[in-house]
Amino acid sequence: MIQMTLIQIDNYGPWTVTPTPRAEADLQILQAELYADLQRQFAAKGGLVFFTRFDNMLAVTNGVDMEDHLRIQKSIGNRYPITVSMGVGAAETPYEAQRKATNALQNYGGAQSEERTEVLAIDGLVKSDESFVQIAHIDINGITDSLTDIIPAYDTSFIVNRVQHFLMKKLIEKGSLLFFIGGDNFMSPCNGLTPEGLLKIIEEIENEINIALKAGVGKAPTAEKAANLADLALEEIRGGFTYNLVHVMKNEE
Amino acid sequence: MIQMTLIQIDNYGPWTVTPTPRAEADLQILQAELYADLQRQFAAKGGLVFFTRFDNMLAVTNGVDMEDHLRIQKSIGNRYPITVSMGVGAAETPYEAQRKATNALQNYGGAQSEERTEVLAIDGLVKSDESFVQIAHIDINGITDSLTDIIPAYDTSFIVNRVQHFLMKKLIEKGSLLFFIGGDNFMSPCNGLTPEGLLKIIEEIENEINIALKAGVGKAPTAEKAANLADLALEEIRGGFTYNLVHVMKNEE
Amino acid sequence: MIQMTLIQIDNYGPWTVTPTPRAEADLQILQAELYADLQRQFAAKGGLVFFTRFDNMLAVTNGVDMEDHLRIQKSIGNRYPITVSMGVGAAETPYEAQRKATNALQNYGGAQSEERTEVLAIDGLVKSDESFVQIAHIDINGITDSLTDIIPAYDTSFIVNRVQHFLMKKLIEKGSLLFFIGGDNFMSPCNGLTPEGLLKIIEEIENEINIALKAGVGKAPTAEKAANLADLALEEIRGGFTYNLVHVMKNEE
Amino acid sequence: MIQMTLIQIDNYGPWTVTPTPRAEADLQILQAELYADLQRQFAAKGGLVFFTRFDNMLAVTNGVDMEDHLRIQKSIGNRYPITVSMGVGAAETPYEAQRKATNALQNYGGAQSEERTEVLAIDGLVKSDESFVQIAHIDINGITDSLTDIIPAYDTSFIVNRVQHFLMKKLIEKGSLLFFIGGDNFMSPCNGLTPEGLLKIIEEIENEINIALKAGVGKAPTAEKAANLADLALEEIRGGFTYNLVHVMKNEE
Repeated sequence: MIQMTLIQIDNYGPWTVTPTPRAEADLQILQAELYADLQRQFAAKGGLVFFTRFDNMLAVTNGVDMEDHLRIQKSIGNRYPITVSMGVGAAETPYEAQRKATNALQNYGGAQSEERTEVLAIDGLVKSDESFVQIAHIDINGITDSLTDIIPAYDTSFIVNRVQHFLMKKLIEKGSLLFFIGGDNFMSPCNGLTPEGLLKIIEEIENEINIALKAGVGKAPTAEKAANLADLALEEIRGGFTYNLVHVMKNEE
Repeated sequence: MIQMTLIQIDNYGPWTVTPTPRAEADLQILQAELYADLQRQFAAKGGLVFFTRFDNMLAVTNGVDMEDHLRIQKSIGNRYPITVSMGVGAAETPYEAQRKATNALQNYGGAQSEERTEVLAIDGLVKSDESFVQIAHIDINGITDSLTDIIPAYDTSFIVNRVQHFLMKKLIEKGSLLFFIGGDNFMSPCNGLTPEGLLKIIEEIENEINIALKAGVGKAPTAEKAANLADLALEEIRGGFTYNLVHVMKNEE
Repeated sequence: MIQMTLIQIDNYGPWTVTPTPRAEADLQILQAELYADLQRQFAAKGGLVFFTRFDNMLAVTNGVDMEDHLRIQKSIGNRYPITVSMGVGAAETPYEAQRKATNALQNYGGAQSEERTEVLAIDGLVKSDESFVQIAHIDINGITDSLTDIIPAYDTSFIVNRVQHFLMKKLIEKGSLLFFIGGDNFMSPCNGLTPEGLLKIIEEIENEINIALKAGVGKAPTAEKAANLADLALEEIRGGFTYNLVHVMKNEE
Repeated sequence: MIQMTLIQIDNYGPWTVTPTPRAEADLQILQAELYADLQRQFAAKGGLVFFTRFDNMLAVTNGVDMEDHLRIQKSIGNRYPITVSMGVGAAETPYEAQRKATNALQNYGGAQSEERTEVLAIDGLVKSDESFVQIAHIDINGITDSLTDIIPAYDTSFIVNRVQHFLMKKLIEKGSLLFFIGGDNFMSPCNGLTPEGLLKIIEEIENEINIALKAGVGKAPTAEKAANLADLALEEIRGGFTYNLVHVMKNEE
């Protein structure tokens, strides 16, 4: 089972324009630093946070318990002008886990409720013997040679966003999520998705928008280890150790 | 005229997997902190950076001169395990400015060249009396009530990405760029785009994917001021002071 | 027993002037961010880092094991232009623990050795059932009214430094350490020091330099809990719940 | 003339213990990040900040005008749970400049006043044609060989603190300030101090506590340039290009 945490800044929208709109640069710095900070704290426990919409972040948090969540929440409240609420859900697929996490938090009030502050709403935590995370690291073949070094920077970014859009659409049908992680890289928490299922998606995208992708898949008890294995699997494809476009590595423990 | 800077991490891809893939959490923190850092430094000069792909960032930099760029570049090199190269371009439209900026940098070698380090390639700088930045701040009407507080967090994120994809497609045809800035917010450097042109795009998106958008537009000599005016214009729509979905505010100086 | 970790930037001095002296502002930012970063990572495990000399930091690390140290070390190496080596020691007194930690690290080569990189030298780790940390939080009585709001800022800083100097001199004789933590606050890891011993030091300082101090003392299995208890004990003195200048609180577990 | 800015966190002491004492690690991170942040922003304008007591920081700010101060102040208020007030003073000596800066701020109310928030109190700004900063970079001869690599880390830190204490005592009599900047390094804003005067202090300290110091002195219109020149002057002594223990370099402009 996979455990996911939704981290939501409390009443953020109204705060950004009170009393007058705050400088956009400051908001961008605040959001990026908050994300980096949460990443560092969840990573210390084997979790992995995706920036998602920055005011709402989704994290794979197998192994991160209630006390850890509370400590992180408090630490943010002590150092930022805003606070965060969190919802936690556990399920067989990442989509279902984040759905439960969201639902648990929504029960405590809206994102812009003035009453809801620093809520921790736990729908479920994954037990250590049931903990399982599958993550795919997907990238675009040879993007530097074919795009970055040739076409304008914005055009490359446009194509990457297009790939993201297509990947999201196809993966959500499998209960898998997709997050952009910079460059031409995506990470997909994808418990339950088979290598064949992923390969089919990659082939469809090549047919539909003529972009060639490859994917390393990692399976392990924590997000940290699964992501590491996914990276290693992707390196094996890059290094030519396998001709498959989807390569899987499992935790040996 | 608008001035844009492309900031590119030198030889980043290979670095992330040398000698073995670095922990994904560390890379995410590094990228987010680098972005926040650059934002703070460009903002001190009236500029505004968009995270774009994180390893390639685009910034509106009217008023930021060669010496400023060099200082920022050096400051990054002193505090990060990586260095950055930059290209700078000036043009009538944002698209054209980033094209020139990219081109200037590409002339010095590829993003993964081992020789190209800390290059500053200036194709053109905007003179202060010709400096003009137009920025639109676009958001989704009532997203908290209609999406964030009701549907799963990932689904909202999926819809926001879809909106981004459609906006990018339509704006690029006008020579305008679009960047996601968190939540349900986008910023579009859009010199040359008329209010009517922007309204038409908003109406088309409502027809095609049934998402209602609104836009505040700011015009000023620097990105900082244009963004502030765009925020104020958006607040006037939110506050009901205008019934238009596109509202423009100009610098009075 | 108390466990202490010495964190030393590898070959830092030469780096700061290679190829020419780096901007002082950049070095200050680098050092402060490195300290904040290490603090966040050790705090996630119940530890507490003191900035000490910034290129050499001392931390109380009961409960932080070898794997944790390695992870932190690697995380720093991934995100900074420098690396860190660490020595770990365990003893009855803080002084003795840091002596062992230093010694363990020195055995691997000098701080400016070009060969010594990312060493982790563990002389000893405290077992969980023997883990005990005593920390005193010491501050100056009524500093805001008597100094900050009246005399020049530098003069206050001068007096605080003077107090630090006297406290260090007297505490080291007891095997206790002293670190400045900002404002008029000091923290002293002081396993083995009795309340009477600490009170005597406070009285001597009042006699010698006419500065009135007070101290909250916390005792617990980790630095985090001991520091929290020390804060609470100090609050009880501030709140007038005790007339003692030294007040002790123990972990009830 | 030298211009100095006192940066003071508003009502910080009470905040740190409301409603109960905040985790010490969080406060340490907050203080270090605030310092790094201010440093980055003042450095973008040629200034240099010293961490001083962290809740009170002193900066040399020649060339940083009122608008710059306001922007920095606002930027901090947008991204931290606390706000800062500032006082600015200009004088022939650093001591006198910080005295005026402190006095200007104190006139607006105490550091722990609940009413005083985000005040900017300017007693005087240095005009660009009168701008002059003299900074000495002082360090301990051969500290790595003689101390860091041989004795316990805390003992070295103890000696460095002792040197600081003696330097502060002697420099304040000349109207010069002294700040610890990490390692075995100190920076002294010292307008008006002659090389002979500084050499005499270094000789006295060698006689009194048997620690050999050396100093590079830089003179320039801004803190940034003066500090750079001081670094270069110190490198010349280290490199054996001069036998003097005090070496001066001036801005050639």
